[in-house]
Formats: sequence, C-alpha cells, structure tokens
Amino acid sequence: MRVDLADLAPAPAVFLGHCAALHLTFIEQLTTAMANAPRVADKDALARVTGVVLTRYLALVAEIERLQLDKSDIMAPHLEGVEEFERRTQGNSWQEQVASAHVTIGFLTDFWMRLAAGLPADLRDRALAALGNGDLEGPMHRILERGIAATPPLASRLALWCRRLVGDTMLQARSALVLKDDPSRDEAKIEPVFTELIAEHTRRMDRLGLTA
Amino acid sequence: MRVDLADLAPAPAVFLGHCAALHLTFIEQLTTAMANAPRVADKDALARVTGVVLTRYLALVAEIERLQLDKSDIMAPHLEGVEEFERRTQGNSWQEQVASAHVTIGFLTDFWMRLAAGLPADLRDRALAALGNGDLEGPMHRILERGIAATPPLASRLALWCRRLVGDTMLQARSALVLKDDPSRDEAKIEPVFTELIAEHTRRMDRLGLTA
Repeated sequence: MRVDLADLAPAPAVFLGHCAALHLTFIEQLTTAMANAPRVADKDALARVTGVVLTRYLALVAEIERLQLDKSDIMAPHLEGVEEFERRTQGNSWQEQVASAHVTIGFLTDFWMRLAAGLPADLRDRALAALGNGDLEGPMHRILERGIAATPPLASRLALWCRRLVGDTMLQARSALVLKDDPSRDEAKIEPVFTELIAEHTRRMDRLGLTA
Repeated sequence: MRVDLADLAPAPAVFLGHCAALHLTFIEQLTTAMANAPRVADKDALARVTGVVLTRYLALVAEIERLQLDKSDIMAPHLEGVEEFERRTQGNSWQEQVASAHVTIGFLTDFWMRLAAGLPADLRDRALAALGNGDLEGPMHRILERGIAATPPLASRLALWCRRLVGDTMLQARSALVLKDDPSRDEAKIEPVFTELIAEHTRRMDRLGLTA
C-alpha cells in the first residue's frame, strides 16, 4: 500500500504546468550531458533518453491543451523555480550531469506520480501514463554503470555528488505541495512519502554500487 | 532538373556516419537555444523541433544498423569535425542560436539530400525519407519571425550573423565530398549544386525579410 499525497496536491493546471516545465529542464540537462560526453555510444544513449523525456513532455502538454488551457500561461510561473533548480543540480563533468538526471528525474517522477493521486480520476490515469512512457531508469543506469566500470575512482565522486543532489531535489518536490494550516498534520502526511522516495533513491544508488 | 552529386558521394557508411554525427550536433544546437530562450512558447517550439531532428537521427542510425555496421565506429571519425563546426556556428544569443540551426540544418539537409544520389537505390530512398521526416523549416521560420516582429532591430543583426554562417556551412558540406584527381572537373560538378543550395538559402532568408 503506497501512501500518497492526494490531500496536498495542487490543482490540475498547477500540477501539469510545474511538471511540464520541469521536463523542459530535464531535456536541457540531458542534452548538456550528451554534448559533453566524449563517446558516440554515450551520446547516442543520451539522445534516446532525451527522446523519452520529450515524449513525456508532449503528453503532459497534450493534457494542458485538453483542459483548453494555454501552455505558456500554465508553465511560465514555474520557469524561474525549475531553472534555478537545474542550475543548482548541474554537474561539472558529463558523468555528474548524467548522475544528476538519473537522480533528479527518478526522484521527481516518483514524486509526481504520488502527487497525481490528487487529480480527477481520468486526468490522473492519463498523467500517470504520460509519466510512465518509455524507460529512463534502465538506460541512465547503464550509462553510469559503463562509466564507473571504465573509471572505478569515479564511484566515490558520483556517490558524493548524488548525496548533494538529494536536498535540492526534495525541496523542488516540496515546492509543488499545497500545504494546509496545520504544519504538524501536513508533515505527518509528507514524511512517510518522502521516506519511501528516499528508499527508492537509495535502491537506485545501490544498483550502481554507490552509497546513498 | 536538379543537379546532383552522385559522382562525388562517399560510401554508404561514410554518408550515414557523417550525417548522423551532424544530427547529434543539431540536437545540441537546438537544445542550447531552447535553454536560453526566455519564453515558454519558444522553448516549447524548440523542444518539438528537437523531436523532429531526433526522429531523423534515429532513422539514420537505423540505416547504419541495417547495414550491420557499428554506429559508434561509423560516427566516431566525424565527431571532431562536426563539433568544431558546431562551435564555430554557435550564436551568442538564443535567437542567433535558432538562426544558426535554421541556416545550417536547412543548407546541410538540402546538401545531404543531393549527396544521397550516390547511394544504392534502396538506401537512397530510405535516406531521403529519413532526412524528410517532419517539418523543421516551418517551425524555425516562425520562431525567428516572432522574434523579429517583437524586436525589429534584431533583423539586421541576424542578417549579418546568417551571412557569417554560410562559409563554414559550405566548408562542412564540402568536407563530405570525395574529390577525384581532376580539380577542375570536380569544381564543374560542385559549382552548380552549391549555386542552387545558396539560392535556397537566399529564399530562406528572404522569407524572413533578411538580406542573404
């Protein structure tokens, strides 16, 4: 039984606008890594991952349009926040950039899927389908795994970098919640969800042999 | 009657490897412009254009794989050249970056379509289909048109910038040709094709109200 965030979820327009704007920054993050990756195999893999994120983005925008909302109006209020988040989580090397994408996209997609519990049923199902399009975890995991196998000392640097990302990523997730008047009741709802999300993050790191 | 470059075309592996590597740099160029564009509408349009380039890239790589060639081996020799080309044609502002994409992708796609005349017939048809996937000209034209309408002095800056791009773009195209022993006979074949490509470039600029 998964705990969810239905009570603290924003209205559909805010849910979709924030999530679509985030996906634009994911595309930027991935193509920066692609540009900096020296090997064709990694560039090719990152181009394909970008394609998956783009498909999800287009599906989210299709939901905005289905609600007869203007995508620019809906996304614009979230742009500054997500771009500041992207700057704070942009790694220096291409491998740190892939690690950033892996950690932040993984965590925030898990989070937004929980948050979708607060949407009207039909929109919720389509939002979950949009966020579940294609496989991102697998390809990003394999790129990082190849990099660590080729350069074992990379592991400790990436472990440190990924640990640093979690705080900003959690704050980005929290910024999407609509808190109520009673902070202790809000925290009682948020805490178990974040505990689960961090557990998933830890499993993601474990699979790479990295300490979370 | 279009003149073509069949006699000077490279072998299939070189044609596909160079063209696919170029498409990776087109993706980088477009997503850099997307990241720098301040308005959601332009970011959204550039994300969609990136999707079209990505589709073409994947179709080119599918042809490499159909020939049972390794995509990394086939693209790697072209990486340094196309990345140097990208650096030389990377604009400073996001609008210059879109103009670069419009001019260089337009010119080089026209060029590679002529070059396809030298491929075996079935591969030629599929390569032309890959390079013809989706519409790029229309969306990039509209982004630039909107920018110029909002800031009319931009026109002269973009006209200057686009003129500067043509030399590097022509050199990039020429680098794909396999020249023969007789330079004057080679030039006799190349010259009419480049005259046509420049005429198409001029029409592209004219439609934006820019002097080529």
